[in-house]
Amino acid sequence: MKLHNTAPAAIGVVGATGYTGLEVLRVLGRHEGVRVAFATSEREAGEASAVPGLPLARSEDVDPSDVEIVFLCLPHGEAVPWAERALSAGARVVDLTSDHRPGSGREEAAVYGMADLVGTEIRDAHLVANPGCYPTGVTLALQPLVTGGLIEEGRPVVIDAASGVTGAGRTPRRDLLFAEVSGDYRAYGLGNDHRHLKEMRASFPQTPLLFQPHLLPVPRGILETIYLPVHSGVDAAAVKDAWLHAFKGAGTIRIREGGAPALSDVVGTDLVTLGAVDNVGVENVVTVVAALDNLGKGAAGQAVQNMNLMLGLEPERGLRC
Amino acid sequence: MKLHNTAPAAIGVVGATGYTGLEVLRVLGRHEGVRVAFATSEREAGEASAVPGLPLARSEDVDPSDVEIVFLCLPHGEAVPWAERALSAGARVVDLTSDHRPGSGREEAAVYGMADLVGTEIRDAHLVANPGCYPTGVTLALQPLVTGGLIEEGRPVVIDAASGVTGAGRTPRRDLLFAEVSGDYRAYGLGNDHRHLKEMRASFPQTPLLFQPHLLPVPRGILETIYLPVHSGVDAAAVKDAWLHAFKGAGTIRIREGGAPALSDVVGTDLVTLGAVDNVGVENVVTVVAALDNLGKGAAGQAVQNMNLMLGLEPERGLRC
Amino acid sequence: MKLHNTAPAAIGVVGATGYTGLEVLRVLGRHEGVRVAFATSEREAGEASAVPGLPLARSEDVDPSDVEIVFLCLPHGEAVPWAERALSAGARVVDLTSDHRPGSGREEAAVYGMADLVGTEIRDAHLVANPGCYPTGVTLALQPLVTGGLIEEGRPVVIDAASGVTGAGRTPRRDLLFAEVSGDYRAYGLGNDHRHLKEMRASFPQTPLLFQPHLLPVPRGILETIYLPVHSGVDAAAVKDAWLHAFKGAGTIRIREGGAPALSDVVGTDLVTLGAVDNVGVENVVTVVAALDNLGKGAAGQAVQNMNLMLGLEPERGLRC
Amino acid sequence: MKLHNTAPAAIGVVGATGYTGLEVLRVLGRHEGVRVAFATSEREAGEASAVPGLPLARSEDVDPSDVEIVFLCLPHGEAVPWAERALSAGARVVDLTSDHRPGSGREEAAVYGMADLVGTEIRDAHLVANPGCYPTGVTLALQPLVTGGLIEEGRPVVIDAASGVTGAGRTPRRDLLFAEVSGDYRAYGLGNDHRHLKEMRASFPQTPLLFQPHLLPVPRGILETIYLPVHSGVDAAAVKDAWLHAFKGAGTIRIREGGAPALSDVVGTDLVTLGAVDNVGVENVVTVVAALDNLGKGAAGQAVQNMNLMLGLEPERGLRC
Repeated sequence: MKLHNTAPAAIGVVGATGYTGLEVLRVLGRHEGVRVAFATSEREAGEASAVPGLPLARSEDVDPSDVEIVFLCLPHGEAVPWAERALSAGARVVDLTSDHRPGSGREEAAVYGMADLVGTEIRDAHLVANPGCYPTGVTLALQPLVTGGLIEEGRPVVIDAASGVTGAGRTPRRDLLFAEVSGDYRAYGLGNDHRHLKEMRASFPQTPLLFQPHLLPVPRGILETIYLPVHSGVDAAAVKDAWLHAFKGAGTIRIREGGAPALSDVVGTDLVTLGAVDNVGVENVVTVVAALDNLGKGAAGQAVQNMNLMLGLEPERGLRC
Repeated sequence: MKLHNTAPAAIGVVGATGYTGLEVLRVLGRHEGVRVAFATSEREAGEASAVPGLPLARSEDVDPSDVEIVFLCLPHGEAVPWAERALSAGARVVDLTSDHRPGSGREEAAVYGMADLVGTEIRDAHLVANPGCYPTGVTLALQPLVTGGLIEEGRPVVIDAASGVTGAGRTPRRDLLFAEVSGDYRAYGLGNDHRHLKEMRASFPQTPLLFQPHLLPVPRGILETIYLPVHSGVDAAAVKDAWLHAFKGAGTIRIREGGAPALSDVVGTDLVTLGAVDNVGVENVVTVVAALDNLGKGAAGQAVQNMNLMLGLEPERGLRC
Repeated sequence: MKLHNTAPAAIGVVGATGYTGLEVLRVLGRHEGVRVAFATSEREAGEASAVPGLPLARSEDVDPSDVEIVFLCLPHGEAVPWAERALSAGARVVDLTSDHRPGSGREEAAVYGMADLVGTEIRDAHLVANPGCYPTGVTLALQPLVTGGLIEEGRPVVIDAASGVTGAGRTPRRDLLFAEVSGDYRAYGLGNDHRHLKEMRASFPQTPLLFQPHLLPVPRGILETIYLPVHSGVDAAAVKDAWLHAFKGAGTIRIREGGAPALSDVVGTDLVTLGAVDNVGVENVVTVVAALDNLGKGAAGQAVQNMNLMLGLEPERGLRC
Repeated sequence: MKLHNTAPAAIGVVGATGYTGLEVLRVLGRHEGVRVAFATSEREAGEASAVPGLPLARSEDVDPSDVEIVFLCLPHGEAVPWAERALSAGARVVDLTSDHRPGSGREEAAVYGMADLVGTEIRDAHLVANPGCYPTGVTLALQPLVTGGLIEEGRPVVIDAASGVTGAGRTPRRDLLFAEVSGDYRAYGLGNDHRHLKEMRASFPQTPLLFQPHLLPVPRGILETIYLPVHSGVDAAAVKDAWLHAFKGAGTIRIREGGAPALSDVVGTDLVTLGAVDNVGVENVVTVVAALDNLGKGAAGQAVQNMNLMLGLEPERGLRC
């Protein structure tokens, strides 16, 4: 445990009543190096926030110049004005929406915060685009394999993914009611057209990706089963070696020696867990499984990891790993 | 509604307290052309069965010569002696275990009861091997496409499947306890080595299959998302045309015009629902989704469909479709 | 099976996309004595209804004089104008909202459709107020005991009830989202002030009722555990005798000899199941448990039972019992 | 955060693979004042425990004299020999089974560890009987009210309780399988004869208790809705005052000003939350609701609280509150 004699950094959370904002506050509540100075909600202003003693405030009533870092936990499409306001006031920004991610058209303005792959630039960034939940698992799993030349070009990488319902946000919708989701399982984003694809394709421009998400009847967690076309001679052991090499010292990444990760390994944590297996009777396809909590490593966990880098703290400070 | 003036056929159910046996009794309870003459359970003999007024009996206390058809709903590996006993007594048999399915080593003794593909032989069969739950969806989806020459040979067909927990049976196991399954989702049968593969490979000896099942936190239902390598020029419309042609008049098969089937479409029914979509940015892969209830079309529904064929009744008599 | 040579009765369903309307259509779909002539939805007009081949229509585009009976499956508070319109057109009405129930202020205009207790009047009624889901279990359990003089006056009857989420309707609300309900259990309607109390108090004006509902993380089903103050000498056997006497021939009411009913006994059925047990170490309190499906006997099942009575059919025709 | 310069206390956990043992290890893993020296499992000896780097050991291979405190997380009925062995070796014991609780016949040998009510004796105890999950909520809720003379003698206190399935342990049983519990809700321990009653009656010998538990389809959490007969003039405000007075400074007890606690407030924490409401139209009954996590405050949380008292640490050290 590192002892520090500096004052904790002041933090603001914009959009503190959605699932992402609530989880950011939960993680920050465990973090001894920061204090939350404001948490906003337009609709519930005046009511208690998830931070003891701190009522929710309206956006217009808080001052971003009071804080070092602002987390934007708004609905997708609503982050740009707040990002500009915070930056003008001298605060730094971690944007958890898709508004500054690769493929958004605004990616030039931000550093892409895939924290275990982009460490140094994040340290000095003023605006970090926090990665999407699905792309986090996919990108961490694939990047070392693409870099290492293990994947055979030309054949598509099939990503069959399943997510818990908090991934769809907290705005009421009929199709997210308990009685609709309970006992069901369905594919959505059919036709390889999910909005997260732009973000993934930006990371792997040479690799055709076929991404098919499904909705799981669980509150949280993502499992991605990836069917990976590999060069002749590449097996699961080689895949795991590439990960071990790339992620040495990465405290939130776990590589399973045997078996495959499950949601229950990661729900409520800020971990991503990776596994790889060979397939009997099928050549040159390794099956990769990545598991993470869409609200943990897929959102709040990586956002706080980015914050730690920006503040010069250990990357895993305060995280659940 | 067909009126019949013949007496209802007598039926025996062996293994009447597992999920499959219970579902067979549920379907037969809706069927006006049959009556259940006995239902066995070694452990619960003497207690009430799911048939009003019919207590559970020990195997040794029932007489297969009393019935026209015996359903074997035993654990896998335990059906052979009972099948022999029933056949010797002159009864016909629908075996819901894997013991006489393709790949079992005993498939020569039985007709494979994929009812919508093998109608005529079933009519005269003495012993029908009722297909497995996963193979039912896969085989119905693929057979018309293989026959029609739509699938490109050589590249693997990736079958990413998910099943509710009744697929694993009713024998107590720690990993099937509510507190273990709730909120979880995991891959199992890793490495392309699931026991259902033998059955599927027997139907498609020329096509490499990569089959990866997952365990869903729902009681029942199977969704199979199949990534299908197709010849250049073959699209989702061609896939649906092949199905429509093959399954004209098949009352338990539904082909969706748009979108993809979901578990909620089929749970509690004896239907299988099929959908197909093209994929933006990836060539020559059509995504196929098949949904069925593992206890319905995946077990009891198809077993009763086979019984109907054996008794010369309409195939969908008594089914939930 | 009764053969009938009259034409099936024409039925209209107003509000056919909520949980209650969908369930009414599901039950009517099994009923050979009726045909659904229209099903309305303002928002989804033109789309497919749950009846094969019948598109949803706007209210203004259907004619109640085409049908014998109209089911009103609207939100509470919206049924009165439609009831007047249907009655003026010569149709009879089963109102599944609370708008004509006891305590509504409009109860004089309707017959209260507690079908197993009020048979004759329902036969000739033009407007039937279909009972609420919670009151159905409570009233059926208590009425024979109050009539029989088993309950001690003056001490409150404590009704601890739990319902699945479809009881709260299908309109999107944050507190009914899957991620909010899953894993939770909570009391609501605190302080003995639930809107169903007026309806129950009208049936039992002399008996103080303490009614405390809870929200269960299940789609459907109601369990009511009732702590019943009884006269000295009254035990569970006497309670069951009173029920057996009152409900002789009532095909949707089951009285358990031993044990207590569970949700799994009744979900998906139109049954209500009753049980009673004595309590060691506590005098003059019998515990009664009633289980029913809030959408079955608690709504659509009893509505169709009322329709059967109105049409002169057997009361249980088409029901799941 | 208190800095301490003493070495962390060595702890042993006996029965480290059941739900209770796993949760004790989870809480101890967050506790900086202790280290786990051994964790036992007969069946999984040699495999990894939940403590990084510590394999599971067989009971016979560990030495209780190595540790200051042993937690017994065994099945009920199996704790006595281990308790004797540990005490003989000079270790102190927190027994999480029912074997030394009030009503067990062995309560004289132990201090009853209702930590917020019995502080001083626990400090010096050699053997602490950790309270049951249901009795913890009931006893904390009722004790200040009995002491304060708010409850009317003679009329029964009705305790309608509901628990998640981990309360029933991790040994495989058919009735605890996912497919049996999902979608169900049922009463059990019918007839006021649950084994926890002896424990509760020992705390309240003058008060007749009617305790009716139910099984919830959730992994964890207990909600107890208590219908409390009170003296004329006693209302919910008086109940809350009595609690506030009794539990001043108790860090794991929360008293809600308005509304009632829900499972979602407490699952995953070591809190118990209490609420009280008056009832319209019913005199002299206050409804009390207590919520706690059966594995948290109902088991591991209170066990670690007892350990803290025994070691002279702050009571809430390491707890999730």
